Amino acid sequence: MPHRVLVPFGGNAAPAHWLGKNHLGGKGANLAEMAATGLPVPPGFIIPTPLCSQYYEAGGQLPSALVEALPEGLAHIEAAVGGRFGDAANPLLVSVRSGARVSMPGMMDTVLNLGLNRDTVEGLARRSGNRRFAFDSFRRFIQMYADVVLGLDHYLFEDALELMKDDRGVHLDTALSADDMEALVGQYLAIVEEALGRPFPMDPLEQLQGAIGAVFGSWRSERATVYRRLNHIPEDWGTAVTVQAMVFGNMGEDSATGVAFTRDPATGERAIYGEFLVNAQGEDVVAGIRTPQYLTKSARERAGAAGVSMEEAMPGVFAELASLFALLERHYRDMQDIEFTVQEGRLWLLQTRTGKRTGKAALRIACEMVDEGLIGETEAVQRVDPAVLDQLLHPTLDPAAPREVIASGLPASPGAASGAIVLDSQEAERRAALGEAVILVRAETSPEDIAGMHAARGILTARGGMTSHAAVVARGMGRPCVSGAGTIRIDAAERLVHTGRHTLSEGAIITIDGTTGQVMLGEIPTVEPELSGHFATLMEWADRHRRMKVRANAETPADCRVARQFGAEGIGLARTEHMFFDPGRIVLVRRMILAQEPAERAAALAQLLPLQRADFLEIFNEMAGLPVTIRLLDPPLHEFLPQREQDYQELAEASGLSVATLRRRAEELREMNPMLGHRGCRLGVTSPDIYGMQARAIFEAALAARTPPFPEIMIPLVATRRELDLMKTVVDAAAEEVFGAAGRRLDYLVGTMIELPRAALRAGEIAATAEFFSFGTNDLTQTTLGISRDDSAHFLAAYLEQGIYPRDPFVTLDVDGVGELVELAARRGRETRPLLKLGICGEHGGDPASIAFVEGLGLDYVSCSPWRVPIARLAAAQAALARAA
Amino acid sequence: MPHRVLVPFGGNAAPAHWLGKNHLGGKGANLAEMAATGLPVPPGFIIPTPLCSQYYEAGGQLPSALVEALPEGLAHIEAAVGGRFGDAANPLLVSVRSGARVSMPGMMDTVLNLGLNRDTVEGLARRSGNRRFAFDSFRRFIQMYADVVLGLDHYLFEDALELMKDDRGVHLDTALSADDMEALVGQYLAIVEEALGRPFPMDPLEQLQGAIGAVFGSWRSERATVYRRLNHIPEDWGTAVTVQAMVFGNMGEDSATGVAFTRDPATGERAIYGEFLVNAQGEDVVAGIRTPQYLTKSARERAGAAGVSMEEAMPGVFAELASLFALLERHYRDMQDIEFTVQEGRLWLLQTRTGKRTGKAALRIACEMVDEGLIGETEAVQRVDPAVLDQLLHPTLDPAAPREVIASGLPASPGAASGAIVLDSQEAERRAALGEAVILVRAETSPEDIAGMHAARGILTARGGMTSHAAVVARGMGRPCVSGAGTIRIDAAERLVHTGRHTLSEGAIITIDGTTGQVMLGEIPTVEPELSGHFATLMEWADRHRRMKVRANAETPADCRVARQFGAEGIGLARTEHMFFDPGRIVLVRRMILAQEPAERAAALAQLLPLQRADFLEIFNEMAGLPVTIRLLDPPLHEFLPQREQDYQELAEASGLSVATLRRRAEELREMNPMLGHRGCRLGVTSPDIYGMQARAIFEAALAARTPPFPEIMIPLVATRRELDLMKTVVDAAAEEVFGAAGRRLDYLVGTMIELPRAALRAGEIAATAEFFSFGTNDLTQTTLGISRDDSAHFLAAYLEQGIYPRDPFVTLDVDGVGELVELAARRGRETRPLLKLGICGEHGGDPASIAFVEGLGLDYVSCSPWRVPIARLAAAQAALARAA
Repeated sequence: MPHRVLVPFGGNAAPAHWLGKNHLGGKGANLAEMAATGLPVPPGFIIPTPLCSQYYEAGGQLPSALVEALPEGLAHIEAAVGGRFGDAANPLLVSVRSGARVSMPGMMDTVLNLGLNRDTVEGLARRSGNRRFAFDSFRRFIQMYADVVLGLDHYLFEDALELMKDDRGVHLDTALSADDMEALVGQYLAIVEEALGRPFPMDPLEQLQGAIGAVFGSWRSERATVYRRLNHIPEDWGTAVTVQAMVFGNMGEDSATGVAFTRDPATGERAIYGEFLVNAQGEDVVAGIRTPQYLTKSARERAGAAGVSMEEAMPGVFAELASLFALLERHYRDMQDIEFTVQEGRLWLLQTRTGKRTGKAALRIACEMVDEGLIGETEAVQRVDPAVLDQLLHPTLDPAAPREVIASGLPASPGAASGAIVLDSQEAERRAALGEAVILVRAETSPEDIAGMHAARGILTARGGMTSHAAVVARGMGRPCVSGAGTIRIDAAERLVHTGRHTLSEGAIITIDGTTGQVMLGEIPTVEPELSGHFATLMEWADRHRRMKVRANAETPADCRVARQFGAEGIGLARTEHMFFDPGRIVLVRRMILAQEPAERAAALAQLLPLQRADFLEIFNEMAGLPVTIRLLDPPLHEFLPQREQDYQELAEASGLSVATLRRRAEELREMNPMLGHRGCRLGVTSPDIYGMQARAIFEAALAARTPPFPEIMIPLVATRRELDLMKTVVDAAAEEVFGAAGRRLDYLVGTMIELPRAALRAGEIAATAEFFSFGTNDLTQTTLGISRDDSAHFLAAYLEQGIYPRDPFVTLDVDGVGELVELAARRGRETRPLLKLGICGEHGGDPASIAFVEGLGLDYVSCSPWRVPIARLAAAQAALARAA
Repeated sequence: MPHRVLVPFGGNAAPAHWLGKNHLGGKGANLAEMAATGLPVPPGFIIPTPLCSQYYEAGGQLPSALVEALPEGLAHIEAAVGGRFGDAANPLLVSVRSGARVSMPGMMDTVLNLGLNRDTVEGLARRSGNRRFAFDSFRRFIQMYADVVLGLDHYLFEDALELMKDDRGVHLDTALSADDMEALVGQYLAIVEEALGRPFPMDPLEQLQGAIGAVFGSWRSERATVYRRLNHIPEDWGTAVTVQAMVFGNMGEDSATGVAFTRDPATGERAIYGEFLVNAQGEDVVAGIRTPQYLTKSARERAGAAGVSMEEAMPGVFAELASLFALLERHYRDMQDIEFTVQEGRLWLLQTRTGKRTGKAALRIACEMVDEGLIGETEAVQRVDPAVLDQLLHPTLDPAAPREVIASGLPASPGAASGAIVLDSQEAERRAALGEAVILVRAETSPEDIAGMHAARGILTARGGMTSHAAVVARGMGRPCVSGAGTIRIDAAERLVHTGRHTLSEGAIITIDGTTGQVMLGEIPTVEPELSGHFATLMEWADRHRRMKVRANAETPADCRVARQFGAEGIGLARTEHMFFDPGRIVLVRRMILAQEPAERAAALAQLLPLQRADFLEIFNEMAGLPVTIRLLDPPLHEFLPQREQDYQELAEASGLSVATLRRRAEELREMNPMLGHRGCRLGVTSPDIYGMQARAIFEAALAARTPPFPEIMIPLVATRRELDLMKTVVDAAAEEVFGAAGRRLDYLVGTMIELPRAALRAGEIAATAEFFSFGTNDLTQTTLGISRDDSAHFLAAYLEQGIYPRDPFVTLDVDGVGELVELAARRGRETRPLLKLGICGEHGGDPASIAFVEGLGLDYVSCSPWRVPIARLAAAQAALARAA
């Protein structure tokens, strides 16, 4: 088909979204889809991407066919929206936006309010009844157009604005009057004329052609070119241009702007939910400057709020909005988050997208949509982002615990959290990196606070509603959030937070409850979440479709219980060194490490044996016959070394060695790079008696367990088959001794972590000895990428920012690098031993994207922290469904 | 063909070596080859490996065919050697040894002097004229046989020996008389009879059958079984058994024992060389207990030695020995090291093997053998072990330097070395690990000293000749050695070394010259080696056959000069950080690192720029147009951090920041695992201005160089293509600026180190940007194996001992692990960019085995330390020849 030079949408235009993103650009395709669905989007037209190439082929000229077609496109908009482009009485204004196939945020130019000139600004002033707004819009348009189209430095205009404010003795733009704005317009126009030697173009059509050319031109701007090169986006894709009618919610008392959700994003309840402001612009709602009103009467009454609801203020438009909800959910088959504007009694939908929601709401919506027949069971399973379950699985405040409420705000994101007050993002990150729990306390948040919000356990803001930046982002992250706690005041200079009665310093501990909106002094005890209702339903559906088993990383009886409660089907990683930090044992462990003679070490090991045996017995009894993978001692021994003088004193008494000797031995054990040092099976190779003691403890406990357990003994940090051979000899010898003495045997496996690149490469021969592999992707990531997790804070943020890694590789498996090694090891291992059991026990075992990857490799199980087990169950089901699709 | 149950060799037996090692075992095949060559080996017969399986199939019984054949085998020996098995007048004694296809050192049993009984011992006593020797031999035989064949604990016999020494009031076995030995024999026989309830077998044939069965049985001993399992040697291979006549060099004045080389192993001169002792056993020569005599009259005279030479003492046998030399070299086509025994005027060759030699000798022998037509030019190139060149390439003592000689010994291994005196191997290793140069000083060395000798710069012994353990091993290692410096005395208790006039403590600095045998006080200056003569001839031949280029790792003008002198064809790695440690610069570098504001850093960088430019200019001028690969800043910044209070003071003055601020900043930069921390291109990503300054300095220097250079700019520690993209942008921008300002351009390349597993895996996409790869195998080994080189000392020795790695993976590339990544990266890189330039610049670039490996991958060049360039040239030639073969 011949290219159309412009593709209209909205009004009575034919559906055009089938032309797709490559032709219409991402933004254009979305608008066309909304229009085709019957939603009242402000009308407009799209200039498709091929025109961009034609523009460059013509040496930076708009193709004549396009210039000729523009009046037709404008006529389509005028017919649909009323008003006329360039008409002084009822002017139509348009936006001109870029839109490439893929989003290139901030890389190309946009012009808003195009069509304003000396005549039309008067029409806008009259129709809005707001002269200041009209001239402020004109002023902004001149500056934007001069910058984008005419290539003038925006500082020229900002200087004029500052001078005006100085003249008027005010600090804020908002303090300038209509007359001031009008005067500024005059100055801006003079600035343009002086700089260019010709006047600012007052012909709206000339403005439009200029803006379209400038958007095309911005495709090859330096920053866009660099961005494309770095992101490997082809130069010849070009950008589409979308020209769309501007609509205004501030044209009087019959105008309004608002946001709405088709279901309650906090609870999932099927009810109209949202906020609006009469005679306001969209940015007023989002910025939280005016307090928005409720949409429905019932919501207003429930909240005991003063302002009239939209249902009461604009019953007709409200009814129209309500009727769109069913249409939206039928079309998009999910809860929608919409932005709307009412201009002079007419409803326009500016945007619709899948709505963010709390975990609780996600579950309820998925389950109820199945009940409603909107979606199927597998779709419900696939629909819920496993990450949001996190919110449901963390403890909530113990209702019986005493609490001193010091402030209240909106329950913006559910869950409770305690931590030290921090007043900015940098401090949040700094303290969190040191392992401190922090609560980010801000007047309001902005995108620059994202990293700090992520680092914090919870967020508290003084301003902003349920749809403020803080609230939306916190819900997405699963962080508890209390927003709009109006009684708190932040003194950034003195680093203090004032509430009514208290003054708290940065670092003081508070607790926030994002489910109630309360803020409390100190740390409040918590209780376990309830795991029934929609959660149980969805997990049951998920388990039906899951292929991989889900195990937990746990070594305490308490964690084992949590793991089973959350549905873990075994222990994938019990870290024996965690059992060694117990204060009652650390002296024995230190004696073992610092022993100079085999006999000294043997004595310490003999005392550790019954303690380890008791540890394992508890785990086996808790897991009642489920498989338990026990990793023999792994960490660098110096982690156990005495730190304080007192430690040395105690140790000297216990061991009979002098403090000086102990210090010298400890000094010998210190390492430059402990992560790559004397740890893992290297300990077993140099001191086989340690692994021998641990193996003996495992087998003795196994024979004593109530239900016969299935121990899987895991040798860490293997790089060669021979290490495993040597260590398996030690384990098997212990088994023979214990079983021989008891006259009874038990099945067990000996396997290895695959956590070094060499182990992955040599997996074929290692599998000749190993009966299972567990991918230790934390360490494998460290060595494959050469990044120490402990030290990555110095540069990893910059790496994520610059897109070097798309996500933190310690959170989501680096599929291209580490993933290839995992794939290769799985393949080579199973070539040698077809039934080799394969699992993953790094942090990635609880990360949905990583789970999807290992599903593709046919792993038998994933293992993650007990709290993440439900996430892993759901993610594994989704991965299995996606693989089957 | 049907299996023969025994395969005779020596005497008039038919050649049998063609049956091969699998059938005859390694030891048997060697003896058969010697016999077939016409060398007078003591005759014997081999029981082939299939008989071992038959032994086990028969439930541990000797196959009857074998038992029936034994008299025939013995008859063959008797005919060849004279004497009869079991004959009281002229008894034949035999050894019975195991011999598997591959060497299993110490794993299986051996019985010597078999055939002794109450009658034959008298014959031995008479014929040797040494009753004490005969009964001592019998005593030892009884103990060995009882242990190996009869399964008695050897402590039983040692207790009897100790009692006897106590009774006689002596400490050494050698102080016991013939009568004492005879009495001991009686006691030993009684011990056996009491323990077994039956007498010691006195029938030599019964003894022989027992010993053969015991050797077969030792194949399945526990330690041999474990050894095979760990080394993956099949159980069903079995062992052969070799029965061979014993010959004795201590049967009177017409008997002797000695060692000889077909050429002088120190100089390579074609002359009879060696030592012998009249009326002695072989162990007397090797142990260095008696001082051996020269073989030739001329050597004796040259040395001014007292004892008569073999040429003079036994002219007939000497002539026979001399005539064998040509035969040996024609057959083995290399210099041979032989052990011989003269029994009652008859010459026997016990062993011949390719002789160890000094580097100088290796070159001369290879070159002269080509001249003699014995071998061809390519064979000469392949023949010389590149590692031995090392000895020739290190400095020798400056002849003009004053020196105080404090002792003299034999010039046992050439070269000079200075270092601190250490008195044992442990201390040598400990101090060497700390970077200290040490000289190992011992009375004599034994195999337990190997590690210490390796750690030492040189070895000095008080006892032992030119063929003592110390001398042989030191020559093999290329370590200077002075042996038999008889005036020194070691006080191990007080840790002192006494010479005639001096008493030196452990730790005192001495210099030894292994070329002259002198020992000097303190450190003596050295001079460069001469690189002409045989060395130049061989290098010329090598270069004709070499495919890969050889470059050097160097960044100082002095090193660049050495590199060119040694034949380097470019610089493969100039480490820019090495230029930063200069005392005049370190303050600037520290200011740069600790800068808090971009402006502060910019100021420090501006001062560093001219210094870096001068560095590069020197290198470019020195290398005169050859390619120079410059690596941008790589190490963890904290390596540059101030250490001492004074450093902080200086820095505070220079930067205007307070010491407290500087300390805080420095603390922030400390890392847990600096090897995996904020280093390499991560510095460039977070502070692009550093790399920008370095690139600018390179380009400015390049334009100023006398000969236009060819800079190859290398970005370190890349793991992703994007890092390289970002850094190439910085480098290219600097180039454009410099070239634009100068109005002149130069060609250059931008490439990357491949030193992380991820980089190897993603080499395909990285090569889309990289114009060359240089394999940084030091770091790649650290990350692939997960071993920090700094910390590996704690366990790597144990790893090598237990065969987990066959060789130190930081010296010789781990082909199975790291090698696969190198291979994969080379392949993927060239799939993207077929002409991608590939090199290696880790330590492995100078290691012959590793060079052979990368030749197979088609790398373009290797780069190594300047001193190793000749080694690399030779190794690369050998690799190319081996690949072509």
